[in-house]
Amino acid sequence: MTKVIHGGDIYRYPGELLDFSSNINPLGVPDVVIELLRGETNLERYPDIEYRALRRKIADRYQLKPEEILVGNGAVEIIFLIANLFSEQKVLLPVPTFGEYRRAVEQAGGQVEIVFRKREHNFALPLAEIEEKLPTVAGIIICNPNNPTGNLMSLDELTQLVEMTKDLQKYLIFDEAFLDFVPDPEKSTALQWLSRHPRMLIIRALTKFFAIPGLRFGYGFGGAEVISHLRNLQIPWSVNSLAAKAAELLIYDNNYIECSRDWIKRERGYFLEKLEKIFGLEVWPTAANFLLARLTTGMSAKDIKTELISHQILIRDASSFLGLDQSYFRLAIKDRASNQKLLTALKKCL
Amino acid sequence: MTKVIHGGDIYRYPGELLDFSSNINPLGVPDVVIELLRGETNLERYPDIEYRALRRKIADRYQLKPEEILVGNGAVEIIFLIANLFSEQKVLLPVPTFGEYRRAVEQAGGQVEIVFRKREHNFALPLAEIEEKLPTVAGIIICNPNNPTGNLMSLDELTQLVEMTKDLQKYLIFDEAFLDFVPDPEKSTALQWLSRHPRMLIIRALTKFFAIPGLRFGYGFGGAEVISHLRNLQIPWSVNSLAAKAAELLIYDNNYIECSRDWIKRERGYFLEKLEKIFGLEVWPTAANFLLARLTTGMSAKDIKTELISHQILIRDASSFLGLDQSYFRLAIKDRASNQKLLTALKKCL
Repeated sequence: MTKVIHGGDIYRYPGELLDFSSNINPLGVPDVVIELLRGETNLERYPDIEYRALRRKIADRYQLKPEEILVGNGAVEIIFLIANLFSEQKVLLPVPTFGEYRRAVEQAGGQVEIVFRKREHNFALPLAEIEEKLPTVAGIIICNPNNPTGNLMSLDELTQLVEMTKDLQKYLIFDEAFLDFVPDPEKSTALQWLSRHPRMLIIRALTKFFAIPGLRFGYGFGGAEVISHLRNLQIPWSVNSLAAKAAELLIYDNNYIECSRDWIKRERGYFLEKLEKIFGLEVWPTAANFLLARLTTGMSAKDIKTELISHQILIRDASSFLGLDQSYFRLAIKDRASNQKLLTALKKCL
Repeated sequence: MTKVIHGGDIYRYPGELLDFSSNINPLGVPDVVIELLRGETNLERYPDIEYRALRRKIADRYQLKPEEILVGNGAVEIIFLIANLFSEQKVLLPVPTFGEYRRAVEQAGGQVEIVFRKREHNFALPLAEIEEKLPTVAGIIICNPNNPTGNLMSLDELTQLVEMTKDLQKYLIFDEAFLDFVPDPEKSTALQWLSRHPRMLIIRALTKFFAIPGLRFGYGFGGAEVISHLRNLQIPWSVNSLAAKAAELLIYDNNYIECSRDWIKRERGYFLEKLEKIFGLEVWPTAANFLLARLTTGMSAKDIKTELISHQILIRDASSFLGLDQSYFRLAIKDRASNQKLLTALKKCL
């Protein structure tokens, strides 16, 4: 089985590290979650095995039906469930991207057919190649915005891909785990096509935007039939009660959502502009709360990671992403003070 | 896919029900868990993807190595992981028992070979039949103490089964989710044979004994090789941080453990004695915190369940367990006041 390397493995290093390796909202755990943990938690009860109240609330929020909602133990459970659709089949995978798609598909007995997002095209989705290969596969998995490159599909690209896959009756899987960070989520989501594409599935996460990766919650949208099939494959009670209750509250937590939008709008521009000015570094624009960087001096990401650890900073060496080499690393966008610390340390190392 | 029915589905009914359908320690959520939720939760961090500290603590507690420990999102995740060992193979399953073993094995592409625990033998394990069929299967899954019958294997039965499966190199899976409730857990666990049987696996849960089914935590013991294989099949971060931290504390919470032992010792005897005296009811002795009952008057479990709901009491209709018919139901053992309420209501209904 493919071993996937992840960011956020701060437990491997002694001492307190400033973590730029995992893409978590620096506004931190929302107050509603802290209040929830301090109140009546009902942990002595099993979660509702059908998650009725939760699925109804998510459905209401997105004008869908509860039958179109899947909830899971992090977005990664949804990814592994969906991978079962590709057992003994092939699925198209544009890379570099999140490593668990491939692992999940292979574990389910499927195969990934790789297409490359190329540096010379700023890691844009290779739509022509996708169109060419689509007839030979059962579907395609796209991370949008893409981890680790930060690319967001345009409305035109989305429309093309929806049409292509719909005509050929292929599965179209969007992982929108980082969508809440993009400038205009409502316009950038594939959700607007969901009712017209019976084989489209959308994966969402609360983990990153609401800064609760420890609590584990992800969800998915799709047609009632495929959602029912996937729910039948789930282990019972896979979402813990606290995550379920937190999710009900967080999707309506407009105050936290607004503050986070303000923060990311401000810091994304600032951080990118400052990074662009650092000699020895190539960076790409991003729609997400992280960005991809490349060392142009011959220094390796592994080396700079080691140097930055001595400054109490952890970054994500991105050389383990298929399609990237040892010169790439990924940075989370954090609060101003942390971003400045990173900038200072980075300049010293380069 | 087999649909498994569970107790604890209080969400299906309006109003507050006294829940005798799920087998949860009535002492409730331990204080250490409540304190944990009120303190620094670090939810903005991913759990340690390797659960290093947690696995070390469990290993220390049971004098094992961390490589022999598996942690999961409830015991049910461990069950579904282990089921992968039986893909395209057969596994022996004594029934009536917990329904998820069969569902997990079938979902993993395996098959269960049923043997019956018979009423005329007080639902004891049919060891002769198991010995006969063992050569034709890849292993056996045993719930000990067994849900829903409450049977606990004797030391002699355990020894026999260990020898049989070891000689034939078969997997021997024990689900000890309810072991903490039995009169002498240290003597009744299969753990004492673990180091001598490379294909033995033991499943444990905190859910029931520590009254935290909402938090989701289970664990498993086995040889380093098979545990490593199973860990490679897991989705990342399947145990949420709160469950991981709670587990570290609870396995050493001797005060809660002692109080719970005192309670179960007292109530098991009392409840059973009173139930035995009710006309129209047959009950079996139990080593667990629940018991199996049978209506001898021709009334169905479904009917008495409906009647008890009108008394604000929920019981587990056990007719959905393979091997039982519509006359069986299961009762949790609760605190004295609740048990008395059940006894009073039951007498009225019969």
